[in-house]
Amino acid sequence: MIIGVLGGGQLARMLALAGLPLGFDFVFYDPAPAPCVASLGEHLRGEYSDRVMLSRFARQVDVITYESENIPIECVEFLSLITPVRPGAQALTCSGDRLREKGIFQELGIPAPAFRAVDSLSALNEAIGEIGLPAVLKTRTLGYDGKGQFVLRSRDDVGRAWEMLGGFSLVLESLVAFDREISVLGVRDQAGKILFYPLSENVHHDGVLRFSRSRPRDPMQKSAEELAGKLLRHLDYVGVLALELFQVGSMLLANEMAPRVHNSGHWTIEGAMTSQFENHLRAIAGLPLGKTSVTGHSAMVNFIGRQPDLAGLLALRGLHVHLYGKAERPGRKVGHATLWSGSGASFEEGCRTLRSLL
Amino acid sequence: MIIGVLGGGQLARMLALAGLPLGFDFVFYDPAPAPCVASLGEHLRGEYSDRVMLSRFARQVDVITYESENIPIECVEFLSLITPVRPGAQALTCSGDRLREKGIFQELGIPAPAFRAVDSLSALNEAIGEIGLPAVLKTRTLGYDGKGQFVLRSRDDVGRAWEMLGGFSLVLESLVAFDREISVLGVRDQAGKILFYPLSENVHHDGVLRFSRSRPRDPMQKSAEELAGKLLRHLDYVGVLALELFQVGSMLLANEMAPRVHNSGHWTIEGAMTSQFENHLRAIAGLPLGKTSVTGHSAMVNFIGRQPDLAGLLALRGLHVHLYGKAERPGRKVGHATLWSGSGASFEEGCRTLRSLL
Repeated sequence: MIIGVLGGGQLARMLALAGLPLGFDFVFYDPAPAPCVASLGEHLRGEYSDRVMLSRFARQVDVITYESENIPIECVEFLSLITPVRPGAQALTCSGDRLREKGIFQELGIPAPAFRAVDSLSALNEAIGEIGLPAVLKTRTLGYDGKGQFVLRSRDDVGRAWEMLGGFSLVLESLVAFDREISVLGVRDQAGKILFYPLSENVHHDGVLRFSRSRPRDPMQKSAEELAGKLLRHLDYVGVLALELFQVGSMLLANEMAPRVHNSGHWTIEGAMTSQFENHLRAIAGLPLGKTSVTGHSAMVNFIGRQPDLAGLLALRGLHVHLYGKAERPGRKVGHATLWSGSGASFEEGCRTLRSLL
Repeated sequence: MIIGVLGGGQLARMLALAGLPLGFDFVFYDPAPAPCVASLGEHLRGEYSDRVMLSRFARQVDVITYESENIPIECVEFLSLITPVRPGAQALTCSGDRLREKGIFQELGIPAPAFRAVDSLSALNEAIGEIGLPAVLKTRTLGYDGKGQFVLRSRDDVGRAWEMLGGFSLVLESLVAFDREISVLGVRDQAGKILFYPLSENVHHDGVLRFSRSRPRDPMQKSAEELAGKLLRHLDYVGVLALELFQVGSMLLANEMAPRVHNSGHWTIEGAMTSQFENHLRAIAGLPLGKTSVTGHSAMVNFIGRQPDLAGLLALRGLHVHLYGKAERPGRKVGHATLWSGSGASFEEGCRTLRSLL
């Protein structure tokens, strides 16, 4: 079977590394001249608006998936006319636009921080009056890893925020004082069967995920699954979906969803019976899902901006290194490492070392 | 770092799948038009005797390794003049020739079945008189997976054996009535540090490995390590080496060594803290070795000649499928699957299912 992937970044790369052993071949569609997946399959270089290239792409693969919610919806709708795209256009539509996404959360009764659409300075001031401060002003589309966001702590910040983001359609969200950031990853197959991974507990700095660990038997597991399950069913979803949540006391608030494999699930490569990448492929290819239970204790750190010292990392016991073959650039995710241990004691000790890499 | 691999079969493929996450790039040298590694790096097509192509290969990589002991020694000696080859020519010299191999076993005091060199029909009859029957007549070179072998059970077999193999330089080996077939995999780094994996217990049919399982805390672990350790040190070896052994009572007899990653170590991909493929790469690249301890219980079956039913396999709990992207051909290894379990009970149950796939 030939899998087509929109985007050629590290998520596409890890999908390919998981899929090659299953006998899949890959074609990657990416506007970049040399995406980091280039060595793992055929790279078709084209713009997401180039219908000639897109149809050539769609005709040479059996199923299409995407590694980013920032793919133009028109692109996916066009491809769907030729070849199945999983997850479908619907998932992309709501996750690619923060306002639509929050609309879906409301519609499905998924608690989320208060928000207002903002399309003018006066609307911004009005929104601040309604939901209060602190709050985050975010672009409705194309934001990721904290890009396109501005945190408003006092009225004095309004000017600079508007200067920076005023040109875009925006959403103002109440800034939640959370106790914990978690995410739940679910995978749904074409028959509607759903499996969830144990929760990930996450630490972000400046909107970028830095540290993530698996939390088997977490008290919030069931509540998180209920919320993500609503999305998976409502969107008639096929593949892996991630839902990021804020925990406040015993309450969960939805931050955002990602209609794709997710950074907070990278620990599943070593730490789960079947990785998120393999299960996403199994789902979109119409194959049986694999077990999502943990194989031990796992925690992950991202390497951001600069290449890590490989020899130093490999000297650490139980550390599994994943580099993405990407050039260094400030704020860019160039790799990650997962600490795995069968024993809780040595794991907690290793976690301290791991956090020191941050 | 750019790794050059001589040979583009499944072992080269699994080396690449282990090395890409560490940031290595790969160049594969193989005479075949489309080896199964083609999608994982650059493929240089050339004969092992083509010095123009070989030097081009050697100049574009940082270190060279091989996936087979059937590479002509002259090829490796020539490459070594330009770029380091690890493990070196010496390991290849003794393992590529059964007579030299047994000479080394004798020299190092590694017990092995009785053998005689055979280069004529009269020499064969004489050898039978000396070591008795049953015995196996084997070609000195280029044999693998039971090819180039003939089992002599009575004097009546001599004629057919000679008809089939008479043209080659041969070795006659006493056929050992073993209690168990095991193998030990060791990895040695450039500083001489040696780590061993827990023993593999193996089942062959017609000279081809069919089933292999990890045997942590096996009573023969220490004795097996002593024998393999002698080889690793004597050969000033760098990388993974496999030693196949027959167990007779409490005695171990060396069957053969492989100066490379080995089929009986495929379970280490899921079943060990660091796979044999990653540790081989770490060793030849001069990086620290990774832990070789097990992560749970593992057993592996090979898929031979025909592609397995992927959906059927993926429906089995805890089974990890590895297909090699090779066309079907009688006797050809096209893939393997490893059963992994954290619990001994569910593992034994799964093993029964696994063996039923044979």
